[in-house]
Amino acid sequence: MRSKYVHGHRQRERQRLQDQAGALVELLHGDTRYPNGSRVLEAGCGVGAQTVTLARRSPGAAFVSIDVSAASLATARQAVKLAGVENVEIQQADILDLPYAEASFDHIFVCFVLEHLPHPHQALARLRRVLRPGGTLTVIEGDHGSTYFHPNSAAAYSAIDCQVKLQAQAGGNALVGRQVYPLMIGAGLDDVRVSPRMVYVDASRPDLVESFTENTFIAMISGVRRAAIAAGLTTAREFSAGIRDLRRTTWADGVFCYTFFKGVGVLQGSRRNGQ
Amino acid sequence: MRSKYVHGHRQRERQRLQDQAGALVELLHGDTRYPNGSRVLEAGCGVGAQTVTLARRSPGAAFVSIDVSAASLATARQAVKLAGVENVEIQQADILDLPYAEASFDHIFVCFVLEHLPHPHQALARLRRVLRPGGTLTVIEGDHGSTYFHPNSAAAYSAIDCQVKLQAQAGGNALVGRQVYPLMIGAGLDDVRVSPRMVYVDASRPDLVESFTENTFIAMISGVRRAAIAAGLTTAREFSAGIRDLRRTTWADGVFCYTFFKGVGVLQGSRRNGQ
Repeated sequence: MRSKYVHGHRQRERQRLQDQAGALVELLHGDTRYPNGSRVLEAGCGVGAQTVTLARRSPGAAFVSIDVSAASLATARQAVKLAGVENVEIQQADILDLPYAEASFDHIFVCFVLEHLPHPHQALARLRRVLRPGGTLTVIEGDHGSTYFHPNSAAAYSAIDCQVKLQAQAGGNALVGRQVYPLMIGAGLDDVRVSPRMVYVDASRPDLVESFTENTFIAMISGVRRAAIAAGLTTAREFSAGIRDLRRTTWADGVFCYTFFKGVGVLQGSRRNGQ
Repeated sequence: MRSKYVHGHRQRERQRLQDQAGALVELLHGDTRYPNGSRVLEAGCGVGAQTVTLARRSPGAAFVSIDVSAASLATARQAVKLAGVENVEIQQADILDLPYAEASFDHIFVCFVLEHLPHPHQALARLRRVLRPGGTLTVIEGDHGSTYFHPNSAAAYSAIDCQVKLQAQAGGNALVGRQVYPLMIGAGLDDVRVSPRMVYVDASRPDLVESFTENTFIAMISGVRRAAIAAGLTTAREFSAGIRDLRRTTWADGVFCYTFFKGVGVLQGSRRNGQ
């Protein structure tokens, strides 16, 4: 799966993921705090873009942050070390083959991971096994189909669609955000509450114009240019027109909208079936 | 413009508008309260779907609620009378030809109106003239392009698109929500703050499944069936497939999303230019 990761793993990509985390911290993570003494699994931590935020917000919890990619984990380790965060243990592990005992975590946190998996329900089922009864599972995912903007532009939608199609070809799903509820219910979690986290950007919010529309979203779509052209999904000219129109939404009269979905569910003891 | 109103004006349509108002009251109006003694113009009140809510939330304010349609106003009068609300005066008037002196209102409220107008900027310019310096203009609009759901369905999007096209043919714009910010800025308002009001519906919110997805949104799209077929935008079979797929989103694993936009701006005295 590693080689198929649609966003790539260059330095610029790392910077993008770090920027994204910075801009969205409050919106996405403001309501996530784990109790002192709890043991939390961050599954699919990647380069650690959320790890420091998570750990700092719950200083009394002990985090185990895992990823399948050694390269990503090296960056994550640097980030954790640089931040002076001491309640995170970083381990290389595959969500589909977890080296942990059943019910060994009090809580599990999964952010921007399911979008990359061909079988997200399977990943949630595996994670559920290592969650103790009464513990919570938190899932955060974006949804590229939640993107719209002013001025409207078919070329811009086509450029976004290239990313959606490439992610699908790599076995992922860039529209997974809207499926967080059914996926969590399907994994046997209870009391599932999903809340949308909409990023609304106009010129009265210049920080978001820069950090989200430009440095997160447009940077992400621009990042698939070469792959999209190589895959025959677009031409250089078409793709450039789409990026130009996305940039147009950052002008003084422009508007840009994108929505993330955050779900929290509880594992009821009585419903565990040892799956 | 009257005869072109895309939603039609039958009894069922009135019920739909009333249901919609009931379901969305808190989301859309929870933060709108006008000071005692203020004089507020509700421009384009229609059948009065928002009027009673508005007036009850600001019992010390005096509302003038206008619409161009005598038929709609008759219903609005009934609604106001039935609710026992006494701080509303209902008057027949055209937003584009307002029978009020300059700067004669402290605040103006416009909800689900701009979507029906061929020249919304012109309407806002006219409304601005009757707003006193320092007064606020509030605009609330939906945006059908903000609709997405699970399971995904091209047929469902096509059915929605019929409504968008019919509204465009009637001179309106069903995607106007995302334009609230540029429209208000363009009308010379200051300190414009637009906030999205997203309606997120899954099976954990059965009240919204019924009141919003079924009785508001699907009812609205279903309402254009005959006109859409007559206009050659779809066939009976295609449209039915779209409605079926929209209904599919109300099942236990379904998700439905729609977003309204609310903008509030202030008229600065120094910027008034007597337009």
